[in-house]
Amino acid sequence: MIIDCHGHYTTAPKALEAWRNQQIASLKDPSVAPKVADLKISDDELRESIESNQLKLMKQRGSDLTIFSPRASFMAHHIGDFQTSSTWAAICNELCMRVACLFPEHFIPAAMLPQSPGVDPRTCIPELVKCVEQYGNVGINLNPDPSGGHWNSPPLSDRHWYPIYEKMVEYDIPAMVHVSTSCNPCFHTTGAHYLNADTTAFMQCLTSDLFKDFPTLKFLIPHGGGAVPYHWGRFRGLAQELKKPLLSEHLLKNIFFDTCVYHQPGIDLLTKVIPVENILFASEMIGAVRGIDPETGFYYDDTKRYIEAAAINPEQRHAIYEGNARRVFPRLDAVLKTKGL
Amino acid sequence: MIIDCHGHYTTAPKALEAWRNQQIASLKDPSVAPKVADLKISDDELRESIESNQLKLMKQRGSDLTIFSPRASFMAHHIGDFQTSSTWAAICNELCMRVACLFPEHFIPAAMLPQSPGVDPRTCIPELVKCVEQYGNVGINLNPDPSGGHWNSPPLSDRHWYPIYEKMVEYDIPAMVHVSTSCNPCFHTTGAHYLNADTTAFMQCLTSDLFKDFPTLKFLIPHGGGAVPYHWGRFRGLAQELKKPLLSEHLLKNIFFDTCVYHQPGIDLLTKVIPVENILFASEMIGAVRGIDPETGFYYDDTKRYIEAAAINPEQRHAIYEGNARRVFPRLDAVLKTKGL
Repeated sequence: MIIDCHGHYTTAPKALEAWRNQQIASLKDPSVAPKVADLKISDDELRESIESNQLKLMKQRGSDLTIFSPRASFMAHHIGDFQTSSTWAAICNELCMRVACLFPEHFIPAAMLPQSPGVDPRTCIPELVKCVEQYGNVGINLNPDPSGGHWNSPPLSDRHWYPIYEKMVEYDIPAMVHVSTSCNPCFHTTGAHYLNADTTAFMQCLTSDLFKDFPTLKFLIPHGGGAVPYHWGRFRGLAQELKKPLLSEHLLKNIFFDTCVYHQPGIDLLTKVIPVENILFASEMIGAVRGIDPETGFYYDDTKRYIEAAAINPEQRHAIYEGNARRVFPRLDAVLKTKGL
Repeated sequence: MIIDCHGHYTTAPKALEAWRNQQIASLKDPSVAPKVADLKISDDELRESIESNQLKLMKQRGSDLTIFSPRASFMAHHIGDFQTSSTWAAICNELCMRVACLFPEHFIPAAMLPQSPGVDPRTCIPELVKCVEQYGNVGINLNPDPSGGHWNSPPLSDRHWYPIYEKMVEYDIPAMVHVSTSCNPCFHTTGAHYLNADTTAFMQCLTSDLFKDFPTLKFLIPHGGGAVPYHWGRFRGLAQELKKPLLSEHLLKNIFFDTCVYHQPGIDLLTKVIPVENILFASEMIGAVRGIDPETGFYYDDTKRYIEAAAINPEQRHAIYEGNARRVFPRLDAVLKTKGL
């Protein structure tokens, strides 16, 4: 089985975006505030949006199951206040749950949180609990910068975030550390902010002893870990200067990287430098880079091709495709086992 | 000849740091403000600080000439106002010039600018002119985020920066795009902020048409280009989505990467993915990562070993070591030619 641990619902019916735009408009003019019940998306519309997009490409490319979360760039936690994010997250998470119910063989949900800049992350717990207990979510997306590029929340190692971690540990769910749209004109969302956040999150963990407080906490760093594997020597050296243990001890029991790196040399470096047990297959399809690479004739984000061509053995490939995801997402593993998979 | 295009004066005599601390103290209590003349560092002290550090390691490792600029993390443009930065930059640039005068075979200076958050970059021109015309500087370091991690200046593509670019083009000098200390607790200075800035600067150029306005403008992106080469497929794909020309046309006539990547797989990827004519040898020695890699038994930042082992031919190695630096730094080339080199 091939599990793609990083897919977002980027193809939701247009009614979702229209509702969100109305919600945003209501921040200036409360009289136009939409009700949750105003958003009507039928199962047929959901099916159509998936069958003609993600599911079609999954079948073409040969992946089986996607861990599916709301569109990352649309989380936009910086918009409005906690109530804004709370309503929006509930809507988006419900849609992903419905997709997973419609295609239980192919999608399993992960939740966005109703984060809001300057608001205690503890406020996210009820949505998290609902998504795990009622919707069957197997993981969450945690935004280390709900401001959208102003980076004014404390680092991930700060106790500020501990209420989320306590719940993650209780449920044994990992968090993908994933920012959303940048509203800072310095940072292009998918070309700079996403990658910077990945690097930043890793370094926040490296300088801290977070995983001493939470030995079973697990973070999945997307986009191949940002700049981290390419600069693995730098990070090993910095850990050494900071008198931290070897990274294998200090971080790699808790931090994992996905394979959203859109060319063969990048995946070759990732699989060479990072232990295979820390790498989870992912494509972020349909996501930031949707075109066909003229150098190969294939989609940039058809990352399975790179994994197939990487210098790893079949057992290692199986770990990247399935084994590691089942270990990092125990609730996914449990669901698969109930199906005899 | 082996030219290291990225060295900072990280080993300056302690009197420099003491003077700076006094200057910082005077921001709260003007009565303790130090005079420039209070700072006394003799030629012997300069010689000692270089001979026992950078020059010793250059001889051990086999590099000949370092393009030498003030310590990047000490630029700290976020401290004080323009006058603070102006005085500090003048002191630091003078010291690098003196080092170059004491060791003309081995060091040639590049200037820091007296940038200050929210201040028109035009104010940096007099220091730049002095450094080029009187001190023989062959390049500058340009900080895209003088706030130190708050990223509230416009992107490098904004006309805000054009006065600097006009002077760079007039003098035919490149800028290394290099941030300084992060005062944002989210970003570790050398483990996150530096690499993020490299990626951010590249993407700011990618989304813009800056090099249409300045076809001869040259940026050197340090630390191996941050996350860029590792994600080269992503950047090619993003350029394609944005209807930009191929990166070779769009950016690689103007953007260059150094080799400050501290392990063999990183350098292997860099030299495989980025055209060799866009790669300049550098080590940033003595810099962020000073230890010995237990996996190799050699210093992490002894980057010449990685270039020696990379799968490139002697002509390509010569381009990385010398040829490209002479092309990107024409004023360096001119100096070398006057010496018959």
